[in-house]
Amino acid sequence: MSGVELEKSTTIDLRKKHIGPSCKIFFSHEPIKIVQAKGQYMYDENRQRYLDCINNVAHVGHCHPEVVNAGASQMALLNTNSRFLHDNIVLFAQKLQSTLPEKLSVCYFVNSGSEANDLALRMAWQYTGHKDVITLQNAYHGHVSSLIDISPYKFHQMSSYEMNPRVHVAPSPDVYRGKYRRDHPDPATAYADEVKDIIHKAEEKGGKIAAFIAESLQSCGGQVIPPWATSKKWHVRKAGGIFIADEVQVGFGRVGTHFWAFQLQGEDFVPDIVTMGKPIGNGHPLSCVVTTREVAEAFMSSGMEYFNTFGGNPVSCAIGLAVLEVIEKEDLQGNALRVGGYLCSLLEKHKEKHPLIGDIRGRGLFVGLELVRDKHKLTPATAEAQEVIYRLKEQHILLSADGPHRNVLKFKPPMCFTKEDVDLVVEKIDNILTEIEHTLGMTNKQNVDNEGGKRKASET
Amino acid sequence: MSGVELEKSTTIDLRKKHIGPSCKIFFSHEPIKIVQAKGQYMYDENRQRYLDCINNVAHVGHCHPEVVNAGASQMALLNTNSRFLHDNIVLFAQKLQSTLPEKLSVCYFVNSGSEANDLALRMAWQYTGHKDVITLQNAYHGHVSSLIDISPYKFHQMSSYEMNPRVHVAPSPDVYRGKYRRDHPDPATAYADEVKDIIHKAEEKGGKIAAFIAESLQSCGGQVIPPWATSKKWHVRKAGGIFIADEVQVGFGRVGTHFWAFQLQGEDFVPDIVTMGKPIGNGHPLSCVVTTREVAEAFMSSGMEYFNTFGGNPVSCAIGLAVLEVIEKEDLQGNALRVGGYLCSLLEKHKEKHPLIGDIRGRGLFVGLELVRDKHKLTPATAEAQEVIYRLKEQHILLSADGPHRNVLKFKPPMCFTKEDVDLVVEKIDNILTEIEHTLGMTNKQNVDNEGGKRKASET
Ligand SMILES: Cc1ncc(COP(=O)(O)O)c(C=O)c1O
Ligand SMILES: Cc1ncc(COP(=O)(O)O)c(C=O)c1O
Repeated sequence: MSGVELEKSTTIDLRKKHIGPSCKIFFSHEPIKIVQAKGQYMYDENRQRYLDCINNVAHVGHCHPEVVNAGASQMALLNTNSRFLHDNIVLFAQKLQSTLPEKLSVCYFVNSGSEANDLALRMAWQYTGHKDVITLQNAYHGHVSSLIDISPYKFHQMSSYEMNPRVHVAPSPDVYRGKYRRDHPDPATAYADEVKDIIHKAEEKGGKIAAFIAESLQSCGGQVIPPWATSKKWHVRKAGGIFIADEVQVGFGRVGTHFWAFQLQGEDFVPDIVTMGKPIGNGHPLSCVVTTREVAEAFMSSGMEYFNTFGGNPVSCAIGLAVLEVIEKEDLQGNALRVGGYLCSLLEKHKEKHPLIGDIRGRGLFVGLELVRDKHKLTPATAEAQEVIYRLKEQHILLSADGPHRNVLKFKPPMCFTKEDVDLVVEKIDNILTEIEHTLGMTNKQNVDNEGGKRKASET
Repeated sequence: MSGVELEKSTTIDLRKKHIGPSCKIFFSHEPIKIVQAKGQYMYDENRQRYLDCINNVAHVGHCHPEVVNAGASQMALLNTNSRFLHDNIVLFAQKLQSTLPEKLSVCYFVNSGSEANDLALRMAWQYTGHKDVITLQNAYHGHVSSLIDISPYKFHQMSSYEMNPRVHVAPSPDVYRGKYRRDHPDPATAYADEVKDIIHKAEEKGGKIAAFIAESLQSCGGQVIPPWATSKKWHVRKAGGIFIADEVQVGFGRVGTHFWAFQLQGEDFVPDIVTMGKPIGNGHPLSCVVTTREVAEAFMSSGMEYFNTFGGNPVSCAIGLAVLEVIEKEDLQGNALRVGGYLCSLLEKHKEKHPLIGDIRGRGLFVGLELVRDKHKLTPATAEAQEVIYRLKEQHILLSADGPHRNVLKFKPPMCFTKEDVDLVVEKIDNILTEIEHTLGMTNKQNVDNEGGKRKASET
């Protein structure tokens, strides 16, 4: 505060001393110290500008003045818990509801995606009276203990982890690298049948399905876009369970064509619970669970009050409302569609010439570029992906890699990202890939079949 | 926003429609709509002023200008995740550490008391390799599923609840109404021996203790002040477990003599983990887990990153730092000692004449006034406590009742509370109690022995 800036080395030393070593830092060898941000740009302590392609939390642009003003003026007026009546909470709930199918009408405001997903699980358990949960391979749903249990992305990191017997992991509906691929006649049904199997097996052991939880598009799992109408086929409702759509990363217009990613599954597909987070407050700790009246009443019938100290306070709600207003006013959903579409098409143009580019997939400003060493074997190009993001960083572009093999470059920039930004980042990636391929002696002769997924004998 | 205020009835209607029915409201028959607050005062939609005796979250006073400015200016500059280096997080951690015993040096910033306690449990499980947790009767530690399991205050509200077999409930060290009372020669040891028993029984069944979690003074449990040195005697470390001090309600100078309530147990008593929340950000969603290097390293050794999207962002940390600075600058801890002491002494003066006053207990600005129908049988005066808070509300004073019988009036006001505020609220309570006692035909003849706890034949 008070204007004094620490030397970067002092910041690093203090961080080592006082911040939990499990809290990782970007580019750990040479971390960046960011002191300011605006729109799609971040600035380091030397006022060097970075183009931000990764911070989906700063959804309407870093430090958007309307959001900042809404927060600042409400902070000066009143910030208290939701046991008092206040207009902000009801106006925010009402506006949020207007973006959703009518049935999804009851909101619970919380402070993080993790709080939202944990509450969704509690509701599912209470509503169904069942205990078992189905989750997807490589899924991440949050950091509290109940969610580590349903997050293979996390528990696979642990040296010793006992899987919760009430949790069942279904294959990720990844048509590039998953069990059923683009060459399968009906991957949606094939993935859904896997779930049917899981349900049968669980029931044979006396389990009963409370919920199926899934992101509408898998983020940490590798920017996975499921085949159309998969969600509708999950069989979970037939088993007495409910469907929880985790929109923490992919909601709020990011997919371009729709406000919510679950709507990509068809307008008639309505989850029982939707959880929201990250972009909802443009960085402010705010999240939400929205459900049906039916589920909400069942949850209440347990007799237990739900009280969350900070959840739904007037400041958080003022900020959430401002974010919704800015998305609308600046047509950021439309921008995501246009700019995201442009990004994918530009990447596609470069695909042919780069043996490292395995797959390009995206919806709006949610785009994955999967790098492989071999387009037939799909050998993950993990080190190469790291190399790309480190070199981009040197050129002041922030991108990251994710997925089970950390070989998927993921684009999820602030939604004010422009076509010029796309031109810049694609040009740099093109150059870096060319250099890496050159160093590795990779040629596009290898590129005989770029329809990833068809397993053919490889030339390498 | 935008200055338009809804009619109160519209706010109520929208709340019914769009906010989860499990989210309760104060004074549900005639809820208050609060639109503004300053210091220890809140204002309703008609600009009527209420004296706030309950909002311990607004620790340094509602909308403290220095806290608001710190938050607002940081919001305009940068708000992003803690994977980038930033001064605010390390400066805040350093300042927080300076209030704690040296061993407690590693911080994890999160967004709520619940996130903090869940993380503390995860650390305890990982560090000890054990699974069992001991908690206190009537304890409340948060709303996520892992914490409902260790919160008898919550799970007792449920019509059907299966207790987690890894959780063990020890008697609350309440020397007024608990198992061992003021007339016991050594209640601290007696309560500790109960824990020893629990540990034995758990171990006999093959359990192993990971942690004992307790508030240093029980809040929701009824403003309970344990006998001196109880915590030191809990036997938990001998069983291989660790001690988690939940300071979510009682930390940050509220107890007056010390900055942390666990320090009331003796300067040499150091918990393994301290969790903080509520007052830490004066209403901003912010919380923290502080632990030793040893526990932090063990937690890291699981191989799992800890990532919390909003935790430790520059805005939250700017606010946390400002709160610490204001506590210091305005000597709010000293104020809590002086004003809290004055409150207790003034209440004591009225004790004799009120048959309804069973017990007065407090440390600093954490004070409980337990109402009973019978000073010998200790029959909880639940309805009378409700009556008191409703009548106070009519006179524009906000107080609430808690504890397992909802008969403990609890004072936990913003720390800028003054002696004049005390005079006002005690006068009103004195009058209301007199009226209620008159209506009920209670006389102070019943008041033959006001040393609560000694069970004698009652006259009523
Ligand atoms: C899909 C998804 N769900 C939930 C979460 C948890 O959100 P938070 O970190 O706010 O608890 C995340 C965070 O990365 C996420 O990606
Ligand atoms: C002692 C204690 N611990 C933890 C919590 C949970 O805090 P939060 O509501 O911020 O999750 C509370 C909340 O009332 C509390 O009183």
